[in-house]
Amino acid sequence: MNNTPIQFKRIGIMGRYRRILPHDTVQAIITFLKPHVEEIIVETETARLLQIDHINILPRQALAKAVDLILVVGGDGSLLGAAKVAVTAKIPVVGINRGTLGFLTDIHPDHFEKDLLAVLNGQYYQEQRTLIEAHLFDENNQQLQNFLALNDIVLSPGIIPHLVKFATFIDNHFVCQQRADGLIITTPTGSTAYALSAGGSILHPGLNALALVPMFPHKLSSRPIVVAGHSEIRLEIGADNDGDPTVSADGQERVTIPRGGSIVIKSLSAKLQLLHPLNYDYYETLRSKLGWETT
Amino acid sequence: MNNTPIQFKRIGIMGRYRRILPHDTVQAIITFLKPHVEEIIVETETARLLQIDHINILPRQALAKAVDLILVVGGDGSLLGAAKVAVTAKIPVVGINRGTLGFLTDIHPDHFEKDLLAVLNGQYYQEQRTLIEAHLFDENNQQLQNFLALNDIVLSPGIIPHLVKFATFIDNHFVCQQRADGLIITTPTGSTAYALSAGGSILHPGLNALALVPMFPHKLSSRPIVVAGHSEIRLEIGADNDGDPTVSADGQERVTIPRGGSIVIKSLSAKLQLLHPLNYDYYETLRSKLGWETT
Amino acid sequence: MNNTPIQFKRIGIMGRYRRILPHDTVQAIITFLKPHVEEIIVETETARLLQIDHINILPRQALAKAVDLILVVGGDGSLLGAAKVAVTAKIPVVGINRGTLGFLTDIHPDHFEKDLLAVLNGQYYQEQRTLIEAHLFDENNQQLQNFLALNDIVLSPGIIPHLVKFATFIDNHFVCQQRADGLIITTPTGSTAYALSAGGSILHPGLNALALVPMFPHKLSSRPIVVAGHSEIRLEIGADNDGDPTVSADGQERVTIPRGGSIVIKSLSAKLQLLHPLNYDYYETLRSKLGWETT
Amino acid sequence: MNNTPIQFKRIGIMGRYRRILPHDTVQAIITFLKPHVEEIIVETETARLLQIDHINILPRQALAKAVDLILVVGGDGSLLGAAKVAVTAKIPVVGINRGTLGFLTDIHPDHFEKDLLAVLNGQYYQEQRTLIEAHLFDENNQQLQNFLALNDIVLSPGIIPHLVKFATFIDNHFVCQQRADGLIITTPTGSTAYALSAGGSILHPGLNALALVPMFPHKLSSRPIVVAGHSEIRLEIGADNDGDPTVSADGQERVTIPRGGSIVIKSLSAKLQLLHPLNYDYYETLRSKLGWETT
Repeated sequence: MNNTPIQFKRIGIMGRYRRILPHDTVQAIITFLKPHVEEIIVETETARLLQIDHINILPRQALAKAVDLILVVGGDGSLLGAAKVAVTAKIPVVGINRGTLGFLTDIHPDHFEKDLLAVLNGQYYQEQRTLIEAHLFDENNQQLQNFLALNDIVLSPGIIPHLVKFATFIDNHFVCQQRADGLIITTPTGSTAYALSAGGSILHPGLNALALVPMFPHKLSSRPIVVAGHSEIRLEIGADNDGDPTVSADGQERVTIPRGGSIVIKSLSAKLQLLHPLNYDYYETLRSKLGWETT
Repeated sequence: MNNTPIQFKRIGIMGRYRRILPHDTVQAIITFLKPHVEEIIVETETARLLQIDHINILPRQALAKAVDLILVVGGDGSLLGAAKVAVTAKIPVVGINRGTLGFLTDIHPDHFEKDLLAVLNGQYYQEQRTLIEAHLFDENNQQLQNFLALNDIVLSPGIIPHLVKFATFIDNHFVCQQRADGLIITTPTGSTAYALSAGGSILHPGLNALALVPMFPHKLSSRPIVVAGHSEIRLEIGADNDGDPTVSADGQERVTIPRGGSIVIKSLSAKLQLLHPLNYDYYETLRSKLGWETT
Repeated sequence: MNNTPIQFKRIGIMGRYRRILPHDTVQAIITFLKPHVEEIIVETETARLLQIDHINILPRQALAKAVDLILVVGGDGSLLGAAKVAVTAKIPVVGINRGTLGFLTDIHPDHFEKDLLAVLNGQYYQEQRTLIEAHLFDENNQQLQNFLALNDIVLSPGIIPHLVKFATFIDNHFVCQQRADGLIITTPTGSTAYALSAGGSILHPGLNALALVPMFPHKLSSRPIVVAGHSEIRLEIGADNDGDPTVSADGQERVTIPRGGSIVIKSLSAKLQLLHPLNYDYYETLRSKLGWETT
Repeated sequence: MNNTPIQFKRIGIMGRYRRILPHDTVQAIITFLKPHVEEIIVETETARLLQIDHINILPRQALAKAVDLILVVGGDGSLLGAAKVAVTAKIPVVGINRGTLGFLTDIHPDHFEKDLLAVLNGQYYQEQRTLIEAHLFDENNQQLQNFLALNDIVLSPGIIPHLVKFATFIDNHFVCQQRADGLIITTPTGSTAYALSAGGSILHPGLNALALVPMFPHKLSSRPIVVAGHSEIRLEIGADNDGDPTVSADGQERVTIPRGGSIVIKSLSAKLQLLHPLNYDYYETLRSKLGWETT
């Protein structure tokens, strides 16, 4: 609960790439916000897709630096992308969904006014969500690339339906050698996404933890492991894999891992500041999204 | 249990493509068999890989037509390939493993003589194993291609880590619309292979059944379904999939499904005749392979 | 699909013990049936609970022998009890639910007239459902007691939260030694009941099979096994169990197994004749009951 | 890793109730320890069972207050009991197993001398293990009884095979209403015991967390939930349960919950000081106990 009211004055709006955006909702939000704030900036691509004119536009990174609140309009997937620029710019994020409650985008578009106004006036519940960083190394331990994820980092085989062979280390302790369809490294935020389908437990967002969820492991006694949030996870990709295994972040990037390469995953120290209306209730979202309400 | 002894006189030997074959084992088998049978034919590729000379060689299909028993030397994977030509030619198959007990290849290479001689003399336990056929159709219901599998037919998304969207019909009854990492259609033989990692039940080989095992279904209440062996399963692949989903048979072929296409899967009426030593015990193999022996 | 119309003339009505019965529904059914049939007999306990007068009453077994159709009003649980007397008397059963669709009781009470009239006139879909018999033996192999179940036979430990130790044999083949919270032996009918919560697969009612579903097995590689319907399953209960394990049938009986005793389970050769309206669709029931309808 | 060597001078020895204890091992340990320490006290019941004479004996609680190290000889189950008195007396514990590696008792009896001497000289790895407390309340919210557990608190139905109906609250937030075979509340230590069979994830002992693992939940989308270690979990037991549900701690106590009663579970602030040899490796124990070593 936030006790010190903060007035957000410069608002950035981001939507989703690749999908049709709710033009009317975004336009209504802009119209509603105008009298309350000093500046509204729409992310370039969002503006182009929605054909919104007479508004300031900026690309993602620049927008994040120019505003003091980012408003994401869309599903949880839209917020995943915004989270990465928001956490780097240390700007809080609030999400308005498209009519279906999201785990992250929890303000309903049909009556966003009251909730949004409350947030602008500092009446919100602020959560810190952990992101994870993956560092990709080649077989000579040269760093190749970094990824950031709010949900999960997924190791996959190069060729379907082959298995990927890899060794897992946690804080430099060898855990096991595995052959599996892959491995999901998830944050608490991602624990209700892909990892849940794969048999992982739900991790409460207030828990400082990461989970390793094996995908269809060949060894039937393999189980998901939950470790402390400060743990460093290293996956060594066997040079004897058929095809080139890949790594992806939040299901949105996919990069080939060189034979004999490795991936090192740890929590980002900077946290995403995710704002919710004051009546936010994580368990209510769980019940609604997972269909626990009916008996 | 087979009561009528049959003398197998013409023996075909097949090994595994792509892997180093146990040359000594195959040579020892040939040396052992020579005084007992009229003819030994080695599959062309096997002979080439093992550099076996002074022996009759034939390609797979031709070999299957020229012999009255096929001897597979290798792992269960080797037998998958041989099964398809054997069932077409209606020739029984027996498997010699490479030192590790297989579900299908159960004669140990270190003391194959007694078991093999017994089989040649008609002392064996004969099992009928079901294969499944998949017929691939395009969006205009034109048949494109057929597959045969002893283990399983697997539907996969075209892009990893995306989901595949499809509708399932059993005997022309609509079952459900799904978004998942894929679907495994397995025979009893395949139920202890990939489908087992995916949460499927073990189907006894004597059960005339097929199972549909969803892979990481988005809907958490999705469950594997086991249906009668004569059922026809149709998967309609949504035209709105990202990328082109694929279908594979026994993990060895992989073909793209056209948008809006479909796959029809049913049991092959011809059965694989799989021979075992008389002391064969399915449950002993289960205990050994799944580590049930220790308490 | 039944092609030969049969006119049911003597109708027996059964409800559920221990629960408040839908008096109005039963009364409405009786009123509706009267002009169409020769005789209506209500099961004694049902009549007493509903305070239905001016009607013929008979106890369960006698009723089953005096009618040519049994109408069960209630949930699936009500039909479980009726099934046992119906299968013994070889009388078909049809189920009217209490407003919530059941797997077995699929006629809705708000508009039962049309469906029921069609059934009386021979317009129905007839399914044969398998029941299982359990025979309980003591340590000297003396038979003690028999049970009949439409859903499942469950082996449980005597003391909670202790484990039960037992050995499983299928058709006299030793399968494994287990320590677990218990074991569920389920018919296809029971596969969507308790066994489904325990990780079993859904078995289509048209599949002639039984499944063995281990409950929280200590050995993590234990998996449900599905076997042919004619299989004989024997569970030998270790004499070294803490407390006395118990066996129950359809969750409605619970009997202590003597130390060193055993249970033998097999399909009953007589099948339950379960009638459905002609528009019955098993998969529609699955979708509705398991919440597969929403995407 | 402990840097300040501590000399343990007064050693208490505890074994297991109800089971045959390894007399020779305990006698050998006493003989070995004598020249190295000032005092050895054997727990009364252990001494009686082993018929050990000429030694100081004390009951559990008194022993824990009189020594500065408790040595448990037996399996993990033996250490569960000792943990409760040790944590109350703030005395560290070290475990010697009976030939089979335990998660908690990791010194092998065949060569305990070196490991034990190292521990006495302060050469050990010290872990803090969390215990949980359960407080049982009646329907008027009067506290009835407390339990302490190192592994888990288990809610069970009063009658098998019935379900228990209960509502779960975490930190006073309503989570869900459930019908299930029960619920396991587990510590990281218990996550590799009963909860693992029930589908829970492995929680690393260094993670400050508790997990709620539903047992065969009627709602198929129910999943285990992992929450921060400081969370308070409250289970309200429905007054409409058949029979009286029970609660047990570490599988060793079992108490009936009054209809309409509740259980409140939270971490104990005092931690168990569990000592290991310096070469202790949690993941090696995991690999060995779960059979991950073979490929």
